[in-house]
Amino acid sequence: MSNRGLLTVISGFSGCGKGTVVGKMVDSYDYSLSISATTRKPRSGDVDGVHYFFISKEEFEDRIGNNGFLEWAEYVGNYYGTPKDYVDRMLSEGKNVILEIEMQGGLKVKEKCPEAVLVFMVPPSADELKSRLVNRGTEDINTINRRLCRASEEIDFIDDYDYIVVNENADICAQDIHRIICNEHKKVANNSEFINKIKQDFKNIK
Amino acid sequence: MSNRGLLTVISGFSGCGKGTVVGKMVDSYDYSLSISATTRKPRSGDVDGVHYFFISKEEFEDRIGNNGFLEWAEYVGNYYGTPKDYVDRMLSEGKNVILEIEMQGGLKVKEKCPEAVLVFMVPPSADELKSRLVNRGTEDINTINRRLCRASEEIDFIDDYDYIVVNENADICAQDIHRIICNEHKKVANNSEFINKIKQDFKNIK
Repeated sequence: MSNRGLLTVISGFSGCGKGTVVGKMVDSYDYSLSISATTRKPRSGDVDGVHYFFISKEEFEDRIGNNGFLEWAEYVGNYYGTPKDYVDRMLSEGKNVILEIEMQGGLKVKEKCPEAVLVFMVPPSADELKSRLVNRGTEDINTINRRLCRASEEIDFIDDYDYIVVNENADICAQDIHRIICNEHKKVANNSEFINKIKQDFKNIK
Repeated sequence: MSNRGLLTVISGFSGCGKGTVVGKMVDSYDYSLSISATTRKPRSGDVDGVHYFFISKEEFEDRIGNNGFLEWAEYVGNYYGTPKDYVDRMLSEGKNVILEIEMQGGLKVKEKCPEAVLVFMVPPSADELKSRLVNRGTEDINTINRRLCRASEEIDFIDDYDYIVVNENADICAQDIHRIICNEHKKVANNSEFINKIKQDFKNIK
């Protein structure tokens, strides 16, 4: 079947456990993470090409003009974007690439890369999400309520996503997403080379 | 998640092992078979409602007029069709239903039932298919060549199918299709009820 990798976009509410699940997909199923380009200055410990590609504002804007990003956004005065060439290279090397990103970004990726698989992760319930955020203890109740408010707005985009997965257990959720991607590799649309070979075989055998 | 079953259409060349794989899906994963309606007379051993629904020509034509079939065709003077109400009832009872059918029929089903999952099964190679047909020993070489010729024409429809699976081993192939269906149940489009509930939960928690 096809040797090209697939791009998986994973979105979900803050606190639903995306980071843990993505980590398990990298460790257990050999997924590669997409690396963002940014114009923000490196902080201590930041490694160029590992945590981010650090580039200048001019280069970033040039690349925007050359359609060089699958998506990009400005945040607190800095640009952040997903470099198209980097993701393309990984996919053609047969790697399955994960992009953890918010929903608006995910939908922009789907426009430029229609074969990308958009997965939305939800907690078992809204109450469960609230108690996870509270128990995390890193934010005050006003911030938590803002996050929940944002979640309730963001959820309207879900209809444009491909799959919904419930994260009750990170190991099972990582396996669920991995199986989705294994099956996407069996899509007719992702196997044109293989199908052309079969078509040729059958024309030749007559 | 959703409790409604999914309709799986399985097509593939004569001799590629569809029957064996479908049997394993019924036995190992609890899939239900769709039952065709036909106007042909019952033969010895045929049980109405098990092998076929035997109905009169008049009733069949009435049902065609009432949009009562997911697909139908005439073959050697008799009608054969997939009854819409029967399949609908099984799906709403939460059963995953399998319809083993040729490709033109499969595409008609997709028109009436867009959420149906169309799976095309191929043998490991055209040579392998030829030797399976020869080894079966039930047909002379001319019939086999006609079948291969038909296969080479039919394969052009593959681009309208959803998934392609290679049948090298019937147990693995049945498991592959079962996993495809499990994942289809996670499609956003197949979970509108569940998603509306989440949306409501999040509106309420604010």
